[in-house]
Amino acid sequence: MIGSKTWVIAEGYIPESSTGPAPTMTSHETACILNAGDSAAWIELTIYWSDREPSGPYHVEVPPRRTKHFRFNDLPIPHGTDYACVIRSSVPVVVQHTRLDSRQAANALMTTIAHPVDA
Amino acid sequence: MIGSKTWVIAEGYIPESSTGPAPTMTSHETACILNAGDSAAWIELTIYWSDREPSGPYHVEVPPRRTKHFRFNDLPIPHGTDYACVIRSSVPVVVQHTRLDSRQAANALMTTIAHPVDA
Amino acid sequence: MIGSKTWVIAEGYIPESSTGPAPTMTSHETACILNAGDSAAWIELTIYWSDREPSGPYHVEVPPRRTKHFRFNDLPIPHGTDYACVIRSSVPVVVQHTRLDSRQAANALMTTIAHPVDA
Amino acid sequence: MIGSKTWVIAEGYIPESSTGPAPTMTSHETACILNAGDSAAWIELTIYWSDREPSGPYHVEVPPRRTKHFRFNDLPIPHGTDYACVIRSSVPVVVQHTRLDSRQAANALMTTIAHPVDA
Repeated sequence: MIGSKTWVIAEGYIPESSTGPAPTMTSHETACILNAGDSAAWIELTIYWSDREPSGPYHVEVPPRRTKHFRFNDLPIPHGTDYACVIRSSVPVVVQHTRLDSRQAANALMTTIAHPVDA
Repeated sequence: MIGSKTWVIAEGYIPESSTGPAPTMTSHETACILNAGDSAAWIELTIYWSDREPSGPYHVEVPPRRTKHFRFNDLPIPHGTDYACVIRSSVPVVVQHTRLDSRQAANALMTTIAHPVDA
Repeated sequence: MIGSKTWVIAEGYIPESSTGPAPTMTSHETACILNAGDSAAWIELTIYWSDREPSGPYHVEVPPRRTKHFRFNDLPIPHGTDYACVIRSSVPVVVQHTRLDSRQAANALMTTIAHPVDA
Repeated sequence: MIGSKTWVIAEGYIPESSTGPAPTMTSHETACILNAGDSAAWIELTIYWSDREPSGPYHVEVPPRRTKHFRFNDLPIPHGTDYACVIRSSVPVVVQHTRLDSRQAANALMTTIAHPVDA
């Protein structure tokens, strides 16, 4: 049983523009989820905002022994807007957060393991 | 109750120049704070320097179920100067640290979950 | 005994192209492993995919009191493909994950300490 | 007492070239250390290599209530060479690792909180 059932990403922000071919060079944010266990992970994502009540939860499934690199761009999140995310899973998973920002001529990247919350 | 009440960012440095439109492309550092709980978070930021006594504490409030992406540029921190920050909150929160550096033609990004200190 | 015996990298992706001289500027991902102990570390890497069963384990040895910056490019991982990795070691080690992305004119970097799994 | 007395950076690499004015835009790596306590921190840095016995320890002092952003460039570390670092302090501190890589036209940045080792 590898990981935690709750994870937090505090820094969410999808840049408003992009340079380069879609979809690989489109400015985006991902929650990369690894489910190394033998049961499917039923996952709920709740999105927090600076100025209104949270949205969601949105649902994602990660099959056993699979990774899913989920793009926040696929949720109804306006670009250029601050947000944060709490991720709750039915089984332990590991979550890593990444942003690709291609607003300027060369892309920028950032990543961090998300913050695990003990059960 | 998600998170910790004390967090540390050891690497603080606001670049001295910027390329691109303000405020989005202005070189900046943020403490992205998520308060996922149902009580307001009263937060104190203390700034540490390499060569003088600490400054602050400075105060920030994050309402219940809200995120605040706080720019260190809004504090009296000289640019081009090494600093660090201890963040103390009245309730558990999660803190992520990000820098956007646009001194050169294309911006650079970096992020990390800050260091949580157990109660 | 410094570190953990199991580590997770959830965000794996080797960019499909590169700008600049090989091998230093080739787009790549690394698992930087430090074995600060006095016994050799026998390490197994298991690669997880989004749409098929895991591959491996692949084997790496890190001698006592040595670091190895292992390139995932040296494994049979197709470029431009989402993956994740679980790293299991015979002795405690520390793992840090880095990507250099040189698809566009100037390279982008990202790093994070991998997620340690308690024994 | 904020932090840990032992920290690990597994990914060390000082790029071999730079673009832009020294010292700010010189390719470099730093261990950003915060000593939030009221006693001086006496710190030992041990450098690990891929192919030879460790070097050091090298000594750094961080006064009480001060941060020091220590450049690995100031140690006898050859550029373009893989290394790792174990940091031991007489009192608890927090360590964050950063690299600025300016080999190409626009700089790249990466950061992570180092790996704390429990006492």
